[in-house]
Amino acid sequence: MIATDETVCDLGVAHVRAAAARLRGEIVRTPTLRVPTLDAMAGCELWLKAESLQLTGAFKARGAMHAVGRLDPAARTRPIITFSSGNHAQAVAFAAKRYGARAIIAMPTDAPAVKVAGVRALGAEIVFAGTTSSERKAAALEIAASTGGVIVPPFDDPHIIAGAGTATWELLEDVVANTGAPLDAVLIPVGGGGLLAGACLACIGTSTMVYSVEPIGCDALAQSLEAGKRVDVEPGPSLADGLRPVGVGELNFAIAQRWVRGSYRVNDDEITRALVALLVHGKLLVEPSGAAALAAALRGGLPGAPRRVGVLLSGGNVEPSLVTRLLQKANP
Amino acid sequence: MIATDETVCDLGVAHVRAAAARLRGEIVRTPTLRVPTLDAMAGCELWLKAESLQLTGAFKARGAMHAVGRLDPAARTRPIITFSSGNHAQAVAFAAKRYGARAIIAMPTDAPAVKVAGVRALGAEIVFAGTTSSERKAAALEIAASTGGVIVPPFDDPHIIAGAGTATWELLEDVVANTGAPLDAVLIPVGGGGLLAGACLACIGTSTMVYSVEPIGCDALAQSLEAGKRVDVEPGPSLADGLRPVGVGELNFAIAQRWVRGSYRVNDDEITRALVALLVHGKLLVEPSGAAALAAALRGGLPGAPRRVGVLLSGGNVEPSLVTRLLQKANP
Repeated sequence: MIATDETVCDLGVAHVRAAAARLRGEIVRTPTLRVPTLDAMAGCELWLKAESLQLTGAFKARGAMHAVGRLDPAARTRPIITFSSGNHAQAVAFAAKRYGARAIIAMPTDAPAVKVAGVRALGAEIVFAGTTSSERKAAALEIAASTGGVIVPPFDDPHIIAGAGTATWELLEDVVANTGAPLDAVLIPVGGGGLLAGACLACIGTSTMVYSVEPIGCDALAQSLEAGKRVDVEPGPSLADGLRPVGVGELNFAIAQRWVRGSYRVNDDEITRALVALLVHGKLLVEPSGAAALAAALRGGLPGAPRRVGVLLSGGNVEPSLVTRLLQKANP
Repeated sequence: MIATDETVCDLGVAHVRAAAARLRGEIVRTPTLRVPTLDAMAGCELWLKAESLQLTGAFKARGAMHAVGRLDPAARTRPIITFSSGNHAQAVAFAAKRYGARAIIAMPTDAPAVKVAGVRALGAEIVFAGTTSSERKAAALEIAASTGGVIVPPFDDPHIIAGAGTATWELLEDVVANTGAPLDAVLIPVGGGGLLAGACLACIGTSTMVYSVEPIGCDALAQSLEAGKRVDVEPGPSLADGLRPVGVGELNFAIAQRWVRGSYRVNDDEITRALVALLVHGKLLVEPSGAAALAAALRGGLPGAPRRVGVLLSGGNVEPSLVTRLLQKANP
């Protein structure tokens, strides 16, 4: 029997359960999908959680809706501010619009045009600031100071983590409903660690092992787990633009350190193969960051040869021209 | 109040309901999805039924599983034979495999390689026969005569129609569950008319209007409805390879004649635009045939300006190289 009352920094499975209840009707319960060809490639059952089909095209809508929804209504009369490479920006813009608030977003100068357009279409104001997560965070802090606005951070926040955890929570529910048994393992892509920390909380009290997946050269979490303390990296180039922060969040790391069972690093070729295989065989378009966990699953060799493996497809906001290039490169 | 006991040739809504019960656990209950950007393009709420995510990548798995499942077990010791441009072929191969039967499929010589590979991967034997539905039907009849096998026809069959109708049945259920109100209209792509006839049956007793969609130049149903009798056509070229039979089925036409409220014809440019918009904004890959109903929805102007419109995305089996070409052409 595994305890369900464990917490880190007072955060536990109850927070994810409560977030799921609050978010009902506000976000999409995305489908959990099976693709036999991908199962054959991976050598196990893959249970794919398609957050690419979430509002705003990524799981980030969960955390943002949860965090903005829990703000005091008075706080929502001031600007809601964030910093993001793209998907969290769209999510906060969406949540602010839902609650009738003004949104100001610090985005990198090299953000994919599709993500910039998505933020603008939702009526948010954009401030471009450098190319790293620290540069855009500094810009957001300045905006907050000058406007008296509220920052909704992209990952290092209990409400963001609990909201993000609802994706894994639903996945676990779907697998039990379909098979009567729990997932043996779940693979989570890691940028700042919001989805990962949420997954860890969602899995408390279950026998599901949580594994993290990062692009090679953007492996702040894996390095931090190895060092036993938070380590920042200078993110290398990667197709996965959503997984390139300089480091994981403090709260995120504390949770990951307690529950993550192993870390994987995937390269651009593996991400490309996963993205294209999912498109061709699964009929789902994900962004490179959204294909990272599948890339690790397709490599196989998870410890203990798990039978049922959950895979978080975190988002689908990708430039059409990049899809064309990857399809031509993979030539499936 | 609309009667629910209406039938054509003894087929009514009860047959779809019964098929849905039989198919539970055998096929995927595919998600019903919303895409705000597509709603804005169409000027109404689009409720997208993603049969591209069905087993074998198309709604055809429903009819085939239903029809093969209802065969006498003794009949399944003989070959199960069909004729199809692709998706029904894969579906029958899949159903035969599920029931441990041998499958022999007559396919056109110009069938997309992805569909041929799909049939082969499921262990079925393929006989290539001409390029028209009449040529491959003749080949299937010959095979049946020489082997004593059973033909599972692609559309003109009560079990196929009732099975196909379960897609629309689920869509109607999902919309009522989400909104408390029924769909105002549903758009159904038409090849031989299996999905359409099933949709008509599923909608009996509701206020949902059924509209058919065919490629320009492959409009056997629209011509038949106008003539008041079945009319065959010489199918013109169309991206929508699944919607090019020479004519709709007899039973299919009888049902369509009673319940279809209007017919739409879409061209390749409209299909391309719909396919690419769904990929970019909805993150779903469909084949050209699967994008036809969405193409009609995006044109707008449905009679009575319906608020909630169902769209059957019938399948997703498309050559990756075609996806690349269409993405480059549409340059979204």
